[in-house]
Amino acid sequence: MLKHVFIVSLLLSWTSIFTQTKEETKNAILELKEFLSIPNNGLNRDDIKSNIKWLEDAFHKRGFKTQEVQTLSNPVLFAEKIISEKLPTVLFYMHMDGQAVDRSKWDQADPYIPVLKQHIENESWEEIAWSSIDLEINLDWRIFSRSASDDKMPIIAFLNAIDQTGEENLSCNIKVLLDSEEELGSPNLATAVKENLALLSANALIINDGPIHISGHPTLIFGCRGMTSFHLTVWGPVKPQHSGHYGNYAPNPALRLAQLLGSMKDEDGRVTIEGYYDGIHLDEKTKAILASVPDNPEKIHQLLQINTPEKVGANYQESLQYPSLNIRGLRSAWVGAQARTIVPDNAVAAVDIRLVPESDPDRLIGLVRKHIESKGYSILDTEPTKEQRLAHPRLVTMTARGGVLPFRTDLDAPIGKWLNTAIKNNYNEDPINIRIMGGTVPMAPFIKALEVPAVIVPMVNADNNQHSPNENVKLSYLVNAMKTFKAIFTTPLDKM
Amino acid sequence: MLKHVFIVSLLLSWTSIFTQTKEETKNAILELKEFLSIPNNGLNRDDIKSNIKWLEDAFHKRGFKTQEVQTLSNPVLFAEKIISEKLPTVLFYMHMDGQAVDRSKWDQADPYIPVLKQHIENESWEEIAWSSIDLEINLDWRIFSRSASDDKMPIIAFLNAIDQTGEENLSCNIKVLLDSEEELGSPNLATAVKENLALLSANALIINDGPIHISGHPTLIFGCRGMTSFHLTVWGPVKPQHSGHYGNYAPNPALRLAQLLGSMKDEDGRVTIEGYYDGIHLDEKTKAILASVPDNPEKIHQLLQINTPEKVGANYQESLQYPSLNIRGLRSAWVGAQARTIVPDNAVAAVDIRLVPESDPDRLIGLVRKHIESKGYSILDTEPTKEQRLAHPRLVTMTARGGVLPFRTDLDAPIGKWLNTAIKNNYNEDPINIRIMGGTVPMAPFIKALEVPAVIVPMVNADNNQHSPNENVKLSYLVNAMKTFKAIFTTPLDKM
Repeated sequence: MLKHVFIVSLLLSWTSIFTQTKEETKNAILELKEFLSIPNNGLNRDDIKSNIKWLEDAFHKRGFKTQEVQTLSNPVLFAEKIISEKLPTVLFYMHMDGQAVDRSKWDQADPYIPVLKQHIENESWEEIAWSSIDLEINLDWRIFSRSASDDKMPIIAFLNAIDQTGEENLSCNIKVLLDSEEELGSPNLATAVKENLALLSANALIINDGPIHISGHPTLIFGCRGMTSFHLTVWGPVKPQHSGHYGNYAPNPALRLAQLLGSMKDEDGRVTIEGYYDGIHLDEKTKAILASVPDNPEKIHQLLQINTPEKVGANYQESLQYPSLNIRGLRSAWVGAQARTIVPDNAVAAVDIRLVPESDPDRLIGLVRKHIESKGYSILDTEPTKEQRLAHPRLVTMTARGGVLPFRTDLDAPIGKWLNTAIKNNYNEDPINIRIMGGTVPMAPFIKALEVPAVIVPMVNADNNQHSPNENVKLSYLVNAMKTFKAIFTTPLDKM
Repeated sequence: MLKHVFIVSLLLSWTSIFTQTKEETKNAILELKEFLSIPNNGLNRDDIKSNIKWLEDAFHKRGFKTQEVQTLSNPVLFAEKIISEKLPTVLFYMHMDGQAVDRSKWDQADPYIPVLKQHIENESWEEIAWSSIDLEINLDWRIFSRSASDDKMPIIAFLNAIDQTGEENLSCNIKVLLDSEEELGSPNLATAVKENLALLSANALIINDGPIHISGHPTLIFGCRGMTSFHLTVWGPVKPQHSGHYGNYAPNPALRLAQLLGSMKDEDGRVTIEGYYDGIHLDEKTKAILASVPDNPEKIHQLLQINTPEKVGANYQESLQYPSLNIRGLRSAWVGAQARTIVPDNAVAAVDIRLVPESDPDRLIGLVRKHIESKGYSILDTEPTKEQRLAHPRLVTMTARGGVLPFRTDLDAPIGKWLNTAIKNNYNEDPINIRIMGGTVPMAPFIKALEVPAVIVPMVNADNNQHSPNENVKLSYLVNAMKTFKAIFTTPLDKM
């Protein structure tokens, strides 16, 4: 019954909510400018205090209750607006902290003094006076500042979307979790969440972080890969040996490492270790969804300057459905001008594995170990002793790190259908559905702790220089972010 | 006729020549001490001048004529004692210059102030007053000084052996070439030799440099391996890429380099590139000579702390008869604490090849290139352009360096038979015959220029810390060096 009333109300207010006025855009821009002016290095407790203070005021102004949730380090901020116990509740996750800055590398005096710029040509940008927005707002303009995209714009879009929606049009109760250590890997978040499960309980979790698809179309991301890593050190003679005296005699650890690594994949980059891809079956429906993502291989290849990609999947999205086995570093003795005429004493490879839900990290590491043993190696977890060196024909030290788990919400889950409906109704197009994204976000443990279906709804331009100097956000994305939030706030969802 | 007279004369003087008196040993020790006191860094022209001055005096005292042979850098010193045009002429090569020193790493005040020491225990040495030799000479004592072994002891042994032999007992004319830039790779020697072929003409060339076999038995070395080298850089994406976004898609250059290097050898270190070992055939007689070298595999494996060597040959000496293909360095992105979650942009291998006479460096490098191409690579000699990156599925940059040629004198050549006779008659044992040694000396070009059969007759202890701090020579090796020179001076050889 309530739902029907609500829908009528929504239809009546449609025009006023979804036609963004210039004044509303200007308000959001100025509030973002103000928020960006507060430094937000998570390592600096005072920075975080100032951000929390500002956020508390901003949320109170919108009728939210707030609460600082203590952790072992910086507190996180919780905010909520409960309309009715009968409505479903949506929890939004965003973060207030930003990457540290190296002022010398920015094209502006201070990364915490936001600058408005317009694109001139190539990679040139021209500063525009803030007062310009009184006359005209060109949505191609960008705000340059640390955290402009990652992740303060979504917070500002959220607040202004609340203003523009009006409490009477909200179709759900709203909870917000504002992390203060995301850029540090959110080391204390999962524990804090576990200690406050009742406070955070919700029917859906929406994560507003990261860039939307490079094509610029609205994007829903249903999961992200996890990560684990290991190091291999193959041992040769105890010290580097003269390559004249011992070349062709002393076992060369660089060759052995090369052969070992080479044996783990085929020529096209597919892992050949038995069982590595077990459990992964992409049915036709899933393949169709993956193929529907408008990745532009030509563009990616131009960007990476490559002729042919690896062939783990039939396309880019398919390749992300499988765990990776990526050699991220190699080191043995010296190369270039430092090269010496030696047989090296050891050779090291650093490997990272991006995980998907089917690939338990311990299982994969176990398979890699088994593969290495099948090649005649004895595996140690420390540097070998003389006795071990003399006793074993092939010795490798393997050290693995735990890492971060992946998460993936079923594409058919109610949260997915709801968000697809919300976007489609407001953009007149289906959003891009990303089954799992390649990268890793540190929130899988807290998602798991909450036991709630989660989807990432990214909002910022892909070319935002995230984590780098000259981070920026394009104004059209701010406008769309408000539109997306309003769509989410006002599209009814069933309790899930 | 002359030869017969000579042999009679030799037999008469046998006892006096080959019984070394304590006084003769003491004279040699003191002369070596004096010679070692002259600094001899080849980069310091004044050092070399002082050494030449001292050597001129020393050779004149023994009735040699001397001549400075100019090069583009330091002059080399030539000395000769021509007895009769009817006698064969033997040219000896030694060098006066030494490696640069790092005084802080020596266990004595100055590497150019020789110190006499005796071994205490483990790696401890105790200094002995030089005056001790007036009372007693313990042949286990050692002289510590730069160039004690490399290469001033042989020069002093040579001079004192001349004194002890007496001109009337010489069975050959003697020429001596004293290099002044050996430790710099003798960059100007071959040219100087080519310009003075008549001056240096001889029937045999004896090179007195390097250590004798580790077993301590008298050693003849019939050749040394040459060397060439190359670098391979396999190209991935133009910049390092996020291993989450592009792991399983961007071609990983570290994997590709590993597979490429791994494909060049089998599991036992034998090169599998077609034709790489062409021309090398070890007949049974040669294998027997190689097997007769008293290498102690147990000892080598203890020294290197390895369980099993590569299997290029059936034993250590056999392995040296083949060109090597030694990965001497690997580098791609970062490992250890610096490891980053990236797909590297490139991966580099530094490779050296020790050459034998059957393996022309250009031919081997050509075979490696062909092998790389057979794996689908396009080979460049510089970093690829964007166009090249986009046009080729597999790209590698290969840069090869010329290097140094090997030399090898036939074990059956008259010079070999003569030296074997000389050693056997004076040591009552067959010398160790090394067909080719693993390392590379820079004299192959000058040997080639002279077109004369050459054999290396090393004289110093293997544990002499050559090129390192605390270089030393054991007194018993000085005594044996004089014995060896006297054997060579007095054993008749046919003109070859």
